[in-house]
Amino acid sequence: MTEITDIAAYMAGLGAKARTASRRLASATTGEKNAALNAIADDLDSNRAVLMVENKKDLEAGATKGLDAALLDRLELTPARIDSMIEGLRQIAGLPDPIGEIFDMNYRPSGIQVGRMRVPLGVIGIIYESRPNVTADAAALCLKSGNATVLRGGSEAFHSNQAIAAGIQRGLEQAGLPADAVQVLATTDRAAVGCMITMPESIDVIIPRGGKGLIERISRDARVPVIKHLDGICHVYIDDQADIGKAFDVTMNSKTQRYGTCNTLETLLVAEDIAEEALLMLAAPLQEKGVELRGCPRTLEIIDNAIAATEEDWDTEYLGPILSIRVVQDLDAAIDHINTHSSQHTDSIITENYTRARRFLAEVDSSSVMVNASTRFADGFEYGLGAEIGISTDKFHARGPVGLEGLTSVKYIVLGDGHIRQ
Amino acid sequence: MTEITDIAAYMAGLGAKARTASRRLASATTGEKNAALNAIADDLDSNRAVLMVENKKDLEAGATKGLDAALLDRLELTPARIDSMIEGLRQIAGLPDPIGEIFDMNYRPSGIQVGRMRVPLGVIGIIYESRPNVTADAAALCLKSGNATVLRGGSEAFHSNQAIAAGIQRGLEQAGLPADAVQVLATTDRAAVGCMITMPESIDVIIPRGGKGLIERISRDARVPVIKHLDGICHVYIDDQADIGKAFDVTMNSKTQRYGTCNTLETLLVAEDIAEEALLMLAAPLQEKGVELRGCPRTLEIIDNAIAATEEDWDTEYLGPILSIRVVQDLDAAIDHINTHSSQHTDSIITENYTRARRFLAEVDSSSVMVNASTRFADGFEYGLGAEIGISTDKFHARGPVGLEGLTSVKYIVLGDGHIRQ
Repeated sequence: MTEITDIAAYMAGLGAKARTASRRLASATTGEKNAALNAIADDLDSNRAVLMVENKKDLEAGATKGLDAALLDRLELTPARIDSMIEGLRQIAGLPDPIGEIFDMNYRPSGIQVGRMRVPLGVIGIIYESRPNVTADAAALCLKSGNATVLRGGSEAFHSNQAIAAGIQRGLEQAGLPADAVQVLATTDRAAVGCMITMPESIDVIIPRGGKGLIERISRDARVPVIKHLDGICHVYIDDQADIGKAFDVTMNSKTQRYGTCNTLETLLVAEDIAEEALLMLAAPLQEKGVELRGCPRTLEIIDNAIAATEEDWDTEYLGPILSIRVVQDLDAAIDHINTHSSQHTDSIITENYTRARRFLAEVDSSSVMVNASTRFADGFEYGLGAEIGISTDKFHARGPVGLEGLTSVKYIVLGDGHIRQ
Repeated sequence: MTEITDIAAYMAGLGAKARTASRRLASATTGEKNAALNAIADDLDSNRAVLMVENKKDLEAGATKGLDAALLDRLELTPARIDSMIEGLRQIAGLPDPIGEIFDMNYRPSGIQVGRMRVPLGVIGIIYESRPNVTADAAALCLKSGNATVLRGGSEAFHSNQAIAAGIQRGLEQAGLPADAVQVLATTDRAAVGCMITMPESIDVIIPRGGKGLIERISRDARVPVIKHLDGICHVYIDDQADIGKAFDVTMNSKTQRYGTCNTLETLLVAEDIAEEALLMLAAPLQEKGVELRGCPRTLEIIDNAIAATEEDWDTEYLGPILSIRVVQDLDAAIDHINTHSSQHTDSIITENYTRARRFLAEVDSSSVMVNASTRFADGFEYGLGAEIGISTDKFHARGPVGLEGLTSVKYIVLGDGHIRQ
């Protein structure tokens, strides 16, 4: 890696180039953008050997530094992961172009015709941790949505990210788009992150992808908007008018289909009148799968082998085979618990009662609210967005799974025939 | 005014009350919200004498403090202004309720049905300057969109704002909604503003309304999102294929219909091939209206009595009877000038050429882009939003005139029948 001594000057230059490239990208045609995405896919495909050599440098440095096995695994670019990176690029090329969409076009009493047109945000900064495939995924989503991108990956993936970046820039140039439309920082100096999140003149929005610590730090210090994803403390509430079979299926799937994802169930709420039936049905199958159960006092009366939950459990994202369980009086108590302890990610009610389903949908203030469905569905692909750059737990701008539309803005367009205001 | 000694504690308490009230407001029915708006209107109507007495205190204090005539005028609550405040409340009651709207509801291959539901943002902080009628307008828009509000008006309008706030709170209670849903700060201490913009746990978004200095200061220091409106440096570009009559009408209206508004024309761009015809036609009528013309060298060759524009003119929002004029080579040069100097507020092209109109709409990166229409149309009422809390020059979340929809977020809703993820 070349030595960069003046980080502020380097970042300012890089930001200015991104801004210039973003102007060109904003008016790139759908054909140009898709050609670039396919050219990038072809380039990575024909440079697999280079990618793996560069990745090996990172893996060896990581092992020397004593990175743990999980981190080394995330860092590795296996042939299957390169396949999926290439496949992802082609899929994004196949998605509809969000830019230029015109909607809500209506005549007003004054005679003007007013509508809205979807446009790019401008320059998007992405700050992420060890997985190098994020470089290609994030760049592709930003490119398709007409945005220039500045990427800062984890220092442990430096060589892998540079190799992917080189392929991206060759693909852009081949399609006649500026290589500066996607720039990966050529330094691992942490000061560069500080610059990146405080350059409103060059970067319009920051998307951090990584652990909660990283995201909190960036949100606190950023001087530009941040699309952030903090915890996923998701709930299933089994209402006393639940279909017990659905309650079983949805609870088991929400908790055990995958443990480490943000849309995994963490706290199960059960209405008092159905608690005995539901918990006796669920406890053994959950425990057979190795799930540790932590219950409220009433839960402990019903099931064996559960340990007592503490207040802290209601606010914890386990990301593992642990489930906290609380018996609540009724729907009001369930909504109250959720609106107090949920991270506003995804919460689901199991009920056959129309009025309660409707109230849960209206009153639970989370980015995804479900009836009789597994929390594991909270995902850009499952929702039909075609792709996902992350899940926003904010309410501002984008909420829930963020696909291409979340990377855009809209402007008003007005068509007249010499109209003037009276 | 009662003395508040611990500002931080006062603001934390007020914020917590707003958060609690926002939960109730989020599930308030359309009927409840409209009843509250009409009750507030009735209350202000029957308390006109009190409003005017309290306003008089502010006017007298202002005169003693030596406020200038323009400021004292803005501060005054005349009977006509009270009428319009009351009428505004009733109009907002008559608008459709944005909250709870469900859209984009579709079945997915997995069998779940996914859509989106419009929800309030939560708690909105409004910081504004001297005009006390903003208190009622802003509170009404936030209330209708299901948000709690914390308002901090100008210190010079303190008594007027308190009197309006009392009426709002009585109206809320009469409709069975919490009085805390709208709180006006009971202090003029500037430290309270510092607290208000750094309380993400209690306030979700800040909307500053006032001069550029205020807005820049708040944007710089805020720790929550800000919907901001900076300059309105608006352009009209007269293309060489313009209909000269439309060029005349739109230019005159854009510049002279009102001088002090943000959507007023500030810089006129004219294509070289039509410059002589257009400028000779426009110069005298503009000057007859008292508009000072500041031109580029080519402009000065064509018209008399214009003074030379400096580089600074291209970046200046005059908010008065001054117009800068620049002759440009063609559409490319016009778009380039606009994307360099415009404040991304509102820009209009006058042309009969289909391709150029289409390019201008796509390539000018402003919140309102127009063809053959006066820039003065950039306004929430003219666009059919029914009301407007401001015009956003940001791209994030809300852009252009912000009505009720800009004060909302959306969540995903998922309906299943016991569906689980495979």
